[in-house]
Amino acid sequence: MKNISPENISGFVVGEGCFYVECGNDKKYKLGYRIRPAFCIELRHDDRDVLEAVRSHLGCGNIYDLDFGRYKGYEQKKWKPHVKYRVSNFGDISKKVVPFFKRYSLFGKKRVSFELFSQIVELMKQQAHLDESGLQKIISLVNELKTLNKKGL
Amino acid sequence: MKNISPENISGFVVGEGCFYVECGNDKKYKLGYRIRPAFCIELRHDDRDVLEAVRSHLGCGNIYDLDFGRYKGYEQKKWKPHVKYRVSNFGDISKKVVPFFKRYSLFGKKRVSFELFSQIVELMKQQAHLDESGLQKIISLVNELKTLNKKGL
Repeated sequence: MKNISPENISGFVVGEGCFYVECGNDKKYKLGYRIRPAFCIELRHDDRDVLEAVRSHLGCGNIYDLDFGRYKGYEQKKWKPHVKYRVSNFGDISKKVVPFFKRYSLFGKKRVSFELFSQIVELMKQQAHLDESGLQKIISLVNELKTLNKKGL
Repeated sequence: MKNISPENISGFVVGEGCFYVECGNDKKYKLGYRIRPAFCIELRHDDRDVLEAVRSHLGCGNIYDLDFGRYKGYEQKKWKPHVKYRVSNFGDISKKVVPFFKRYSLFGKKRVSFELFSQIVELMKQQAHLDESGLQKIISLVNELKTLNKKGL
């Protein structure tokens, strides 16, 4: 496989990457609500090498085979197994993923999503999610990000 | 819009670009068969700026609005208007598009598609498509490229 440069990766992520925030009620957390910023890229399994290169540049994250579970029914629709690269560890997101894409800038709509995502990560670094008003601010940014990320044809 | 580098573009094209060959019977051509290599990227209309940047780097091609025709029925499915960048002029393909992606290499499966595409373009430059055996060789490469490009979930 040819050497993939950091700028190749940022260009690729504009097309294929997703910055999102998983959240929901969870009693284990102080305010009963869990917020977890994450980054992922999902490809067909025969492009796994590309995800290995991304992981090696970012120095974090895991790669999962998605050839099971909810996808099983799709086999007759010529569905091919997928592979997913995902980072959700907060330290990795804030110290590796965000700085990488600040340095090797994104463009287009993905840049807007990433800017919102970085704001959320920054607020969480400042522990804003540990009090009610900070949490509400973050939830409102998360909703904005969800709207931006919404897929459509 | 931030400055998009050539390596950003090759990374982006790995995810979003398509190298393909339009072909079919056409009596206007010597052997009754038309072969036209083309390159395109189709995005949602609100990312038109990205296509403008690609066109500016490649120095050729046109951008079309796809908010009509066969797409009309999709409005109720929340379909958004699309915009398409397309190069099909043979001189532009062989002197601009192919050299650009040879210099700023692609990766993953898209690289394999591009290599087949370049072989077809090279054969056409040597006018192989003007005799029957050359034409058959090209058609067989075109079929290989079609299989590679075939979409699936």
